[in-house]
Amino acid sequence: VELVCVGTELLTGNVNTHTSYFAGALLSAGLRLDLETAVPDETDRIRDALRGALERSDVVLVSGGLGPTFDDLTREGAAAALGRRLRLIPELLDRIRAKFRRAHLPMPRANRRQAWLVEGARALENLSGSAPGQLFTKDRKEGRQTLVLLPGPGEELKPIFERDVLPFLKRTYRAGLHLATGTFRLTGLMESEADERIRSLVRGSRGKVEFTILAGGGLVEIRATARGRTEKETQAGLRRVRRALRKALGPRLYGEGEDTLEGVVGEKLRRRGETLAVAESCTGGLLAGRVTSIPGSSDYFLGGVVCYSNDVKVRELGISPETLRRHGAVSEACARELAQGARKKVGADWALSVTGIAGPGGGTPQKPVGLVFIGLAGRRAFQARRFLLHGDRLRIRTLATVRALDLLRQAL
Amino acid sequence: VELVCVGTELLTGNVNTHTSYFAGALLSAGLRLDLETAVPDETDRIRDALRGALERSDVVLVSGGLGPTFDDLTREGAAAALGRRLRLIPELLDRIRAKFRRAHLPMPRANRRQAWLVEGARALENLSGSAPGQLFTKDRKEGRQTLVLLPGPGEELKPIFERDVLPFLKRTYRAGLHLATGTFRLTGLMESEADERIRSLVRGSRGKVEFTILAGGGLVEIRATARGRTEKETQAGLRRVRRALRKALGPRLYGEGEDTLEGVVGEKLRRRGETLAVAESCTGGLLAGRVTSIPGSSDYFLGGVVCYSNDVKVRELGISPETLRRHGAVSEACARELAQGARKKVGADWALSVTGIAGPGGGTPQKPVGLVFIGLAGRRAFQARRFLLHGDRLRIRTLATVRALDLLRQAL
Repeated sequence: VELVCVGTELLTGNVNTHTSYFAGALLSAGLRLDLETAVPDETDRIRDALRGALERSDVVLVSGGLGPTFDDLTREGAAAALGRRLRLIPELLDRIRAKFRRAHLPMPRANRRQAWLVEGARALENLSGSAPGQLFTKDRKEGRQTLVLLPGPGEELKPIFERDVLPFLKRTYRAGLHLATGTFRLTGLMESEADERIRSLVRGSRGKVEFTILAGGGLVEIRATARGRTEKETQAGLRRVRRALRKALGPRLYGEGEDTLEGVVGEKLRRRGETLAVAESCTGGLLAGRVTSIPGSSDYFLGGVVCYSNDVKVRELGISPETLRRHGAVSEACARELAQGARKKVGADWALSVTGIAGPGGGTPQKPVGLVFIGLAGRRAFQARRFLLHGDRLRIRTLATVRALDLLRQAL
Repeated sequence: VELVCVGTELLTGNVNTHTSYFAGALLSAGLRLDLETAVPDETDRIRDALRGALERSDVVLVSGGLGPTFDDLTREGAAAALGRRLRLIPELLDRIRAKFRRAHLPMPRANRRQAWLVEGARALENLSGSAPGQLFTKDRKEGRQTLVLLPGPGEELKPIFERDVLPFLKRTYRAGLHLATGTFRLTGLMESEADERIRSLVRGSRGKVEFTILAGGGLVEIRATARGRTEKETQAGLRRVRRALRKALGPRLYGEGEDTLEGVVGEKLRRRGETLAVAESCTGGLLAGRVTSIPGSSDYFLGGVVCYSNDVKVRELGISPETLRRHGAVSEACARELAQGARKKVGADWALSVTGIAGPGGGTPQKPVGLVFIGLAGRRAFQARRFLLHGDRLRIRTLATVRALDLLRQAL
């Protein structure tokens, strides 16, 4: 499998995150990415890169260059590489027109180009944008060859790839060897700590299970790919890994597969029929935003207050001016009062609060950047915890939301 | 100039940040990266990628695969691609040995490999690690060709590149050409609309300025790279582009360079000495989270309410139960009352509100998924706007925050 990323921006400074996405998604389907090329928005460059890729590989994935503008040239490059024509497909044009109509917008003439399909290709519907993907296959002596064109924006590319492309690749190319991948999600451990805890498991599974550890946003992900001659053998191998990881990681393991920390917490609340409120200072809405990223979160999330100014803390959440004077807004006492205040005010079973110094300014020797207090109030008890987080403003705010969600998860 | 990144980790999930670094460094030296390839740690793959690159390009940069272990194979791949031998250079070996001695460490036998140099290449000293870089040049009819091997870790690669390679490339290849890039940021236009508005500018600048258009998260970015024979001519070209874009895009242009929408809005508030509050239903905290992503936003952002339940809307923001009964929570009337309620409650000069249906569930024929109302209340006036947004839950929520920020930007 080979990937060609189209976009001049990838050669003038933008970081390419698509390769990492495709690599992970393919790996979890038992397929390996062998090569990646980034080319500018130039028809000749795209054509040459695709020609080379088609000479080498069974599957060629292409991302980007399907937009409506003059510099979206992947359709042209792919047609030239395959020696095929582009055809305007009336049904595709109708579908694009309908999208604009539904949005009460006139369709710019430029968008007509998105209805051009490589002769013989199948269109892949794009629910998040106007450019359809394209899938082209050819039977050769060496087996079937596949070329896939996908739009560049991640929010368009990922749904198409996961819905229409990955299942097709699995069916067509994975024959014989059985692979099964499990993703195990942990929090409260660093990557190197997770590595140490599972090291003997990794050694003992050599040849049968491959492990990768990935860290990001305060969370760690262990991916285990088991291989076997039969589906049954493979699944049994993965079950053994699951048992061993549960034992090695204990409560640090918060989920598997597509689980998210906010989803796991939400599911626990829903099952107990309990509700949540938040009071956020340094995270400024990110914690609530994360909780409400889950569809149906209105079943258990009632609302919250972003109390950025001290005035709002006092007036809206009943923090005593005395507490602010004596301990400051970034303090254990304030975190506790914020959580209790939010719980009472919103009338929820649980409330989380976050107050801290996200930086880059505002730190002192006593209260440095990264100092964060998280409060949790429930029906029977309340607590506040102190954290010293490292990184830039975004990272400190993200880590604070992770720590807050994890505190509630453990209480539940 | 072409880049080959060597490393299996780049094809199994790690994000490649080297390409972005090289692109920026080359651009600032007036050189352009034309192509990038990522290959796994396999001699044949490295050899083939380098062969292809040497056929196409004047300069081939290679990063990674110069370490001491069995899977560091760039030296072997490069020698094979050039049809040259590897030679153990005693002085290089002495230098590597001396490094270990200075660190009071025994030199592992594996590190001997780092003293192998491609026949005819020049070693580039590595002050941050043990593997020297290698620079090989060849004079052809088409001009001089250069192959550079650099170690993979950023802290080793960058000093060597900037000290020994970039000045050489500038001297040898730039022959008088100067480049300057400007980034122009717009909102409220689709990619294709932006394309239409600047098309005549793009046509008229051919050969002097190159344009790329990028869209993502409801925002559009135009990048213009001007070229000229002198720095002065190049900067003058970029100034002309700026003037032309300002005219073509008017108020749609919200910023340049590293500007963000939330940063631009914040700066306007700060300059006017005015303050902001928010009331969020469907965005659930994302709008506040975005406003507070800017360091120092506490100067103008006072706070907000995430009013997910109707109960919180009524009790905390004073929405009349009558409005909710007659129009529902997702309505223009409710958006207006939410903004006014938040403004009064928090005591801010301005307040934004968002209420809508982010989906995937909860839509009806009258109120489909993606229907969003945004309210803006100021000292003198208030307004509410209706939007029909497309995409999944995350996209609808993201677009809603962009529309809200832009409404305030225009009012300011």
